[in-house]
Amino acid sequence: MASSSSLTLSQALLARAISHHGSNPSSDRVSLSSLTIPSFSGLKSSSSTSSPASRLPRRRTTRRAVRAAAVETLDKTTETSLVEKSINTIRFLAVDAVEKANSGHPGLPMGCAPMGHILYDEVMRYNPKNPYWFNRDRFVLSAGHGCMLQYALLHLAGYDSVKEEDLNQFRQWGSRTPGHPENFETPGIEVTTDSNFVEMFGKFDSCYCLGPLGQGIANAVGLALAEKHLAARYNKPDNEIVDHYTYAILGDGCQMEGISNEVCSLAGHWGLGKLIAFYDDNHISIDGDTEIAFTENVGQRFESLGWHVIWVKNGNTGYDEIRAAIKEAKAVKDKPTLIKVTTTIGFGSPNKANSYSVHGSALGAKEVDATRKNLGWPYEPFHVPEDVKQHWSRHTPDGAALEAEWNAKFAEYEKKYSEEAAELKSIISGELPAGWEKALPTYTPESPADATRNLSQQNLNALAKVLPGLLGGSADLASSNMTLLKMFGDFQKDTPEERNVRFGVREHGMGAICNGIALHCPGLIPYCATFFVFTDYMRAAIRISALCEARVIYVMTHDSIGLGEDGPTHQPIEHLASFRAMPNILMLRPADGNETAGAYKVAILNKKRPSILALSRQKLPQLAGTSIEGVEKGGYIVSDNSSGNKPDVILIGTGSELEIAAKAAEELRKEGKAVRVVSFVSWELFDEQSDAYKESVLPAAVSARVSIEAGSTFGWEKIVGNNGKAIGINRFGASAPAGKIYKEFGLTAEAVIAAAKELL
Amino acid sequence: MASSSSLTLSQALLARAISHHGSNPSSDRVSLSSLTIPSFSGLKSSSSTSSPASRLPRRRTTRRAVRAAAVETLDKTTETSLVEKSINTIRFLAVDAVEKANSGHPGLPMGCAPMGHILYDEVMRYNPKNPYWFNRDRFVLSAGHGCMLQYALLHLAGYDSVKEEDLNQFRQWGSRTPGHPENFETPGIEVTTDSNFVEMFGKFDSCYCLGPLGQGIANAVGLALAEKHLAARYNKPDNEIVDHYTYAILGDGCQMEGISNEVCSLAGHWGLGKLIAFYDDNHISIDGDTEIAFTENVGQRFESLGWHVIWVKNGNTGYDEIRAAIKEAKAVKDKPTLIKVTTTIGFGSPNKANSYSVHGSALGAKEVDATRKNLGWPYEPFHVPEDVKQHWSRHTPDGAALEAEWNAKFAEYEKKYSEEAAELKSIISGELPAGWEKALPTYTPESPADATRNLSQQNLNALAKVLPGLLGGSADLASSNMTLLKMFGDFQKDTPEERNVRFGVREHGMGAICNGIALHCPGLIPYCATFFVFTDYMRAAIRISALCEARVIYVMTHDSIGLGEDGPTHQPIEHLASFRAMPNILMLRPADGNETAGAYKVAILNKKRPSILALSRQKLPQLAGTSIEGVEKGGYIVSDNSSGNKPDVILIGTGSELEIAAKAAEELRKEGKAVRVVSFVSWELFDEQSDAYKESVLPAAVSARVSIEAGSTFGWEKIVGNNGKAIGINRFGASAPAGKIYKEFGLTAEAVIAAAKELL
Repeated sequence: MASSSSLTLSQALLARAISHHGSNPSSDRVSLSSLTIPSFSGLKSSSSTSSPASRLPRRRTTRRAVRAAAVETLDKTTETSLVEKSINTIRFLAVDAVEKANSGHPGLPMGCAPMGHILYDEVMRYNPKNPYWFNRDRFVLSAGHGCMLQYALLHLAGYDSVKEEDLNQFRQWGSRTPGHPENFETPGIEVTTDSNFVEMFGKFDSCYCLGPLGQGIANAVGLALAEKHLAARYNKPDNEIVDHYTYAILGDGCQMEGISNEVCSLAGHWGLGKLIAFYDDNHISIDGDTEIAFTENVGQRFESLGWHVIWVKNGNTGYDEIRAAIKEAKAVKDKPTLIKVTTTIGFGSPNKANSYSVHGSALGAKEVDATRKNLGWPYEPFHVPEDVKQHWSRHTPDGAALEAEWNAKFAEYEKKYSEEAAELKSIISGELPAGWEKALPTYTPESPADATRNLSQQNLNALAKVLPGLLGGSADLASSNMTLLKMFGDFQKDTPEERNVRFGVREHGMGAICNGIALHCPGLIPYCATFFVFTDYMRAAIRISALCEARVIYVMTHDSIGLGEDGPTHQPIEHLASFRAMPNILMLRPADGNETAGAYKVAILNKKRPSILALSRQKLPQLAGTSIEGVEKGGYIVSDNSSGNKPDVILIGTGSELEIAAKAAEELRKEGKAVRVVSFVSWELFDEQSDAYKESVLPAAVSARVSIEAGSTFGWEKIVGNNGKAIGINRFGASAPAGKIYKEFGLTAEAVIAAAKELL
Repeated sequence: MASSSSLTLSQALLARAISHHGSNPSSDRVSLSSLTIPSFSGLKSSSSTSSPASRLPRRRTTRRAVRAAAVETLDKTTETSLVEKSINTIRFLAVDAVEKANSGHPGLPMGCAPMGHILYDEVMRYNPKNPYWFNRDRFVLSAGHGCMLQYALLHLAGYDSVKEEDLNQFRQWGSRTPGHPENFETPGIEVTTDSNFVEMFGKFDSCYCLGPLGQGIANAVGLALAEKHLAARYNKPDNEIVDHYTYAILGDGCQMEGISNEVCSLAGHWGLGKLIAFYDDNHISIDGDTEIAFTENVGQRFESLGWHVIWVKNGNTGYDEIRAAIKEAKAVKDKPTLIKVTTTIGFGSPNKANSYSVHGSALGAKEVDATRKNLGWPYEPFHVPEDVKQHWSRHTPDGAALEAEWNAKFAEYEKKYSEEAAELKSIISGELPAGWEKALPTYTPESPADATRNLSQQNLNALAKVLPGLLGGSADLASSNMTLLKMFGDFQKDTPEERNVRFGVREHGMGAICNGIALHCPGLIPYCATFFVFTDYMRAAIRISALCEARVIYVMTHDSIGLGEDGPTHQPIEHLASFRAMPNILMLRPADGNETAGAYKVAILNKKRPSILALSRQKLPQLAGTSIEGVEKGGYIVSDNSSGNKPDVILIGTGSELEIAAKAAEELRKEGKAVRVVSFVSWELFDEQSDAYKESVLPAAVSARVSIEAGSTFGWEKIVGNNGKAIGINRFGASAPAGKIYKEFGLTAEAVIAAAKELL
């Protein structure tokens, strides 16, 4: 982003997003010229005072004035009749869109429209013309199926990403209003590119609503953690530059999922006071009344988790109750708040409200008419009444003013605290500091043998010094996963400025919280850790990382039977294959120190892909021929005594088995064979190389290929070919010392040699 | 089991287990002749009254007498000094075994020895010489890393599976005391067979301790559900033939995992009064004091979930407190009970108790000595003092008497309620009723097109009539997964005899509960359902099904982009590949009615493998050439116009894409090509066929092969070969009507035809 220094930070982010639109004019609706916000320069690295932003008053009173208009209508400055009209507008936008698509979930938007209206119209601070504004309040619709609520709110609020034609295209091919919205880092990207998973989705950077239940509230916890952490690190007594709330709406489904209990237990533990979650208590899930499977006392549970709990008994029309609850929640600063809002699902539908039939299906023309009559709604589908439109229109100037005020504040901050400002700026922008990669440790064959989990810790500690946004931790295995950053303490309720996060034994929540951290701003780089086999506990969160392009680094140790005695429940077998098959994620299995450093380099540089590092428990030698550059290519030649790209046989290994392949090669060479050893650290990266490069590593003419990997051979046919041999493990593991299992399972240099000889 | 009618049911089960030992004499330690239990015949289908069992008094008084000895020492008939000696024996067996292995977890056994002693010596009803006795109390060590506690208890109780030499072999290759124990259906199987994952593990059918945290308490909920269900179906006012408790010990780690909240919410909802869980509240997890990540109020949370909660404040020496808590728990019949027992991890170790260092490492010789001194333990490693041995020895005769009494009771039951007895017997033994498979529906190409999820429901409803042990449900998607058994109501607190289980939105808990149900007795066949993509939420439980050979049927609908509008968060891509790579599980993707019936046949017949059925949301035609028999072979020819096993091209499809392959074949044949269409419904089953059969379906000489499947192509190289072409999806999906996505993604007959022509 060479241009970022001549633009404000907000604009730079927007411009970067827009730069991806080139080849798809239809989605290029946002342009700098169409922005109605003033041209700020608060974030210019020069301290020019003649820029437009500097003309804005910077005193605290201004901020209050802006908030009075945009925010503090909590004091009911709007006529209730207009509020109701706005709420019904939201309801009917949802009803009409689902009806037109003949598919979708009208029930939640109809029931949650009041809280939605109050949040977006009266409470939240955002700038509709710049969804990237750093200090915006975050909103997460954890019950993602109710996304028409969000689309309707964004539409009313003036977001360019949801115009009337987008609502019309709900759930259609290529529309920006898909059935369960996803949040990516760019505002709508072209339909197909080569090496990347991409899709033209709606762009809602100010909101995060994810279909799979429970993920959203976990993301919200991650967002709130990020805010608390950055505020603690960068706020000054005279300048609280990081200061926003995180709101979420979750439903009964989210509450039933175990992940929500995991993350809410952590949120309580961490005292995330600026997290405010609305629980849409509508008593209906897909299979009917929640009575059939969900009779626990949710409020009491949240109290046990350390939350402040408020019950709004009339969520349908009790607007003042909702407003009062939010005020109370904001007043409680040391605990997150759950506002249980009892609503009627499908409110307004005379025959379907309060029934499961309104959850996930269109109402049908007849019931839509009946609902229009019932709520006194004379308008055509998708109509927004003029007074409602007029009322919401203020959010565009107000949002611009909020951002301008903040930019001015940042300019002051920068003047006074230039070092902190530079660091925070890099976190906000995601720009990596120049030369960061020089911090990566390198190794020679003479360096001591070590487990890649230890080498990983060396990398993490080296990188934490140069990457201010790197933070993370383990699911209660820090001392096994080797993930502690030694120069930092624990992120805790009273020490939120620290960077070691203690997730407890909550893998699923850990992954999803990291997604929230990564999505908070481009320069936060969360990592998280457990044993590789326990990716099974967090797979849904990992898939969401891949789907929403969140750069989360998964530090997965104990990556094979090499962990030994803990036995088959702890020994991954199919896991490498299972992630190689997953789109948009890098599965890396480094063999030694250089490859571990290479894996970290790749993980950091892939800003739109999560990475999984599979690391050994056991010691491994530093091999000759490994390199960071090699890792960047995914597969590369580690050693070779052939000429003319015509080895007799190619031996391929990954991770801890590369050593075995190298040993076998040595033996075979002693017998006069021309043997190439290839490290296949990442299949995805190798796939992305040129055909010429691939041919240079795996020449088509050489069909004598043997692979060795302590995992399922599933998929290896692609690499070794029909005539090759894949040595691996296609059964569960065993409990014994590692060396013994390797031998018993036939993962030995002898087996590689024998296989090679059979093919020669 | 032709022989079962001439043996008692218990003996038949033992004999069946033993029959697997033939080729491995060393593990054949259990034999009928060595049994000290009397030879019962209570379960003979003839109503002979002269059998040995009938000689046992059958009056309730006898049962009481037996219980007085085996169970009701809750009234402290044992000297406290002997109790303490027994508890220290347990502690030192654990300490010594971990020390010898130089690996393991001594902390939990040292802290939990008192509750372990009281449970196994004073409370639980079991027969050590027949771990298969149906009516035994079940015990689950959810904190599976503490398995030496269990091994020590089984050893003292007289189980043949844990002799002193087994304790000596803790965590060693081929031992029956692996690092995290697993429970299989047979008592130790030979080391390697061909097509199956097998390992020589300890056999603990009376206990279930599984390493991955949280799984165990979920299994316990499944076991308690099974008991409540069977009791409700079969108990009579004069004969409560099903009547046992389920006990579990869970630790802080289990409590943190979301799955435990899911299943405990259900246990409370279902009112599982005979589930009693001990929470080992020791304040230590691997990373240190639980204060760093776990500060919620667990007792209050369980109250909110509908549990009865008791706190034993002195779990180290408060034996009477523990006893009183168990009495109280048993008195509460409508709620499960959590007994929070505050213990000191590593109790007795003077320098390491109450620290994380005692959790997962050997104490070290010096500290072992210090602990011996501290607890006044003068004995050699692995020594069981004579008076302790003597004290525990009564469990062998008492256990035999308990079983004899129950067998007699069953004989009475059988006389009076022959029909129910026969049904219950089949559930206990796992024998399938003769001709059950005739219930499977069949279809012709003229049968109406239908979604395989609907065809699945036809199968489930047909099978429920002939398989009394079939029960299950969905994670709040019953009406989408089509899993309701129409002739039954809901399994609920007050209707536990019903067979539709409502799991709520709790996929992970659902899978693990089904594991518990499947492990309760061989004739229970649980099924569970959600969208295929949400296997990501329950993958850890599915892997445990595979690992412990639990026949769970996973009914996974909406199995591809074919689900349409719900979009990429709901569209599986990599899931087929990810399960094909997992050991010991069948991944089945049927194409139509006959294949769906075939998939169910296979799933029912594979008693030691779970099955996943991937089913379509969308309608599919009934194809010519599909068959149940074909499915049993995994891959088979659906249509062919070639001769001499030499087609020009082979088109391979699975599930909803088999139709596309068939259409493409029709077109190609019109152009004079010899085209074979192969359905590849299960890779695992095809792999198990003879080479000759494989060659007859996929002749090596025919390299022109095209596969089509709406999922990742990862792994398909194995089937289509280096020269073939795999059509699939290697990116995330999209939100739009299904037909549109298929077309946009190139999953069409035209694409198959084009690929075929390129290869011809």
